[in-house]
Amino acid sequence: MTQSQKLTVKPYRGTRDFYPEHMYLRNHMFNIMRSVAELYGYEEYDGPMLENFDLYAAKSGEELVKEQLYHFVDRGNRHVAIRPEMTPTVARMVAARIGELPRPIRWFSFPNLWRYEKPQRGRLREHWQFNIDILGSDSVSADQEIIEVAIKIMLKLGADKKDFCIHISDRRILMYFLESVLKLDPSLSAPVCRVIDKRAKISAEDFNRMLIDIGLSNGQIDEIDSYLNLTGKNLSDHPVSQSEGYAELNKLLEGLANNGMDSMCKVDMSIVRGLDYYTGTVFEMYDLSPENRRALFGGGRYDNLVGLFSKERVSGVGLGMGDVTVADFLQTHNLLPKLNPAASVHVALFDENSRLSTSHLANILRSAGIRTSMQIESARLGKQFKWANSKQIPVVVLQGPDEKAQGTVLIKEMASHNQRVVKEADLVSAIHQLLNLDV
Amino acid sequence: MTQSQKLTVKPYRGTRDFYPEHMYLRNHMFNIMRSVAELYGYEEYDGPMLENFDLYAAKSGEELVKEQLYHFVDRGNRHVAIRPEMTPTVARMVAARIGELPRPIRWFSFPNLWRYEKPQRGRLREHWQFNIDILGSDSVSADQEIIEVAIKIMLKLGADKKDFCIHISDRRILMYFLESVLKLDPSLSAPVCRVIDKRAKISAEDFNRMLIDIGLSNGQIDEIDSYLNLTGKNLSDHPVSQSEGYAELNKLLEGLANNGMDSMCKVDMSIVRGLDYYTGTVFEMYDLSPENRRALFGGGRYDNLVGLFSKERVSGVGLGMGDVTVADFLQTHNLLPKLNPAASVHVALFDENSRLSTSHLANILRSAGIRTSMQIESARLGKQFKWANSKQIPVVVLQGPDEKAQGTVLIKEMASHNQRVVKEADLVSAIHQLLNLDV
Repeated sequence: MTQSQKLTVKPYRGTRDFYPEHMYLRNHMFNIMRSVAELYGYEEYDGPMLENFDLYAAKSGEELVKEQLYHFVDRGNRHVAIRPEMTPTVARMVAARIGELPRPIRWFSFPNLWRYEKPQRGRLREHWQFNIDILGSDSVSADQEIIEVAIKIMLKLGADKKDFCIHISDRRILMYFLESVLKLDPSLSAPVCRVIDKRAKISAEDFNRMLIDIGLSNGQIDEIDSYLNLTGKNLSDHPVSQSEGYAELNKLLEGLANNGMDSMCKVDMSIVRGLDYYTGTVFEMYDLSPENRRALFGGGRYDNLVGLFSKERVSGVGLGMGDVTVADFLQTHNLLPKLNPAASVHVALFDENSRLSTSHLANILRSAGIRTSMQIESARLGKQFKWANSKQIPVVVLQGPDEKAQGTVLIKEMASHNQRVVKEADLVSAIHQLLNLDV
Repeated sequence: MTQSQKLTVKPYRGTRDFYPEHMYLRNHMFNIMRSVAELYGYEEYDGPMLENFDLYAAKSGEELVKEQLYHFVDRGNRHVAIRPEMTPTVARMVAARIGELPRPIRWFSFPNLWRYEKPQRGRLREHWQFNIDILGSDSVSADQEIIEVAIKIMLKLGADKKDFCIHISDRRILMYFLESVLKLDPSLSAPVCRVIDKRAKISAEDFNRMLIDIGLSNGQIDEIDSYLNLTGKNLSDHPVSQSEGYAELNKLLEGLANNGMDSMCKVDMSIVRGLDYYTGTVFEMYDLSPENRRALFGGGRYDNLVGLFSKERVSGVGLGMGDVTVADFLQTHNLLPKLNPAASVHVALFDENSRLSTSHLANILRSAGIRTSMQIESARLGKQFKWANSKQIPVVVLQGPDEKAQGTVLIKEMASHNQRVVKEADLVSAIHQLLNLDV
């Protein structure tokens, strides 16, 4: 490389640089998710970014492993993968301490996840995801708790109850329908589920053709269609109302209604979820804005993923909320947070001779817990004020030689251009007062 | 894979699973680092975990790229690397917005970084690192600010002033010494620096032999030895006191003394730092405990890394603090934080019939901001209390059918075994009172 050849400034395709304004938004969302998870007694964990390739080969689904997984062989000849999802890591970590961890286990995390995808709106190669799971309970109250956490997060992000809806289904009902009502051969269940999961993204003709290719009759396809259109009201008259899954779904809905959450939930038999390992409740959160009508995130019950690692059976239910789709939701509904300035006060530098006293002054403010930046380069005062404005810092303080001699400090409010002189000893309280008035 | 073959529960070699107690420690350290950085007006950023391979090939140093970098070719035939350090990403991001970002740029981040190393104490393949940088200022006040932030973090982590010391040097002094005092050919500077950087880890014989191999005489090696042993006091008599670097170092020390930080800093000419891109101030933080006497972390001034991407020259100074070595410091000095229980209150479940009212009760506590877990599985009450104890949850509340009929709730303090009955309407204030008393 010669001196004149410059490297590209672009991030790797399908990834993002988080400049402070982007990081502020990510922190805003994740802090709210964290606070709700902690309110429900969940604990944060994390795992390594690389895992053994086998962890995903086992259960994550063919498309993911064959087409999307980042994997390579390391210098020690180990076949490793960059995690495309967090649930296998959770299952591994739980299995490693299976005898010690009091159950249920309530955990959450904020991993970055990687999939080799064609970048498009809402889909990137690297995204961050809030993952929350409760493991070690078969009770439908666990499913309810996870859905409640999702709803509380949406509300705390500023969403109105009318802005979103959680569509809920149960894979046990679907299995009962396919195997006991339609009487399909059990080997056809998985391929039929995969077609159903694609339904919203393909045409009715393609949907029918794919089911015919699997071996279904037109009559069976009609029955599938009417099953997928079932809602809570007419579900009770359908033969699937005999299934165990139906009873569980009703208990879940009763629990959500008891806590005032039913208006934000709806039964939707077309929800299946793409991952192979779901076995019970499955749900997806939909944005109800006409501009952004799509699934924001989803989750469900996966029985016995821990069984990949351990003889003991541990079931779980969880969800993953991606940063990209949640940010899209906030933008659609005008809920993006106002950026907090990097500092509350900027301490200007009068000249080189006042550098030491200026630095000392800045530290007095910091010791009082006031976020304070200090002018480092000598510059005209006008330029320093302009810099503070460009960073939206609300207050600038200055101590030139005159003020220094008199033991005073000049305070300038940037918005109003008001300025006044206070005694050095009163600086902190004057700043506290100004910043509180701003709130 | 047959059913009976189980996957390993171990994380990939050289990486760690962060169970909640480990995550709690990482969050404790990083929250303190974040709060100090924000107190100085720094803003958080982040970048992607994969970067183009070229980013590191250019400046990160031969050993890192040839022996330690994780890199591979993606499905689209791009040569990518997992980031081994954050500074090249910072430089790329700054270069991408070179005209827009008001300078100086004050940024921090908490990346996970990867190096293929032989795992040992303090060295892992994946570690997390607090990175803080100030870019766009040549003033030594920028160097001072970064060192101050490091000191404030150590103190806020609970360290005593006597527990640690920042050893400071300046590469310009070293260059002046090698090229103007020893009059070495400039082409020898880089190899000599690399040997000096290794000095603490190798024997005196090996050190001498490596310098002789490069072509130095015994006289020159003696001069290097006495140079490396120079401290603040006798530095002023040495020929290097004529250098620009010496004047800058003195300004830096004067600034630190002005803010009461000189007792935690010391001039040490043997500090060089391993990375090739440092050009001015370099420093390392040492633990002074006899049990853990080693460098915890370091940093320095790197002029014009941004020049890899842009015609404009932007200098910077920064440091990186790893989670592994800082945690070792906290352990050595008995400064590990006490783990906070996952919940303040556990709501017990009397029986299946009280499930709905119990869930409602838990939500009343959560609405008041009280971190509350709820019993999900039916179980004997004794088992439920035992569970709360195992999770160190200080308070359990219970509403059986009798309490429900009377509109009351039973509150049990787990430590004292005290229990009492309060009206439902007084539950929140009673819990608030109990939890405050615990503090």
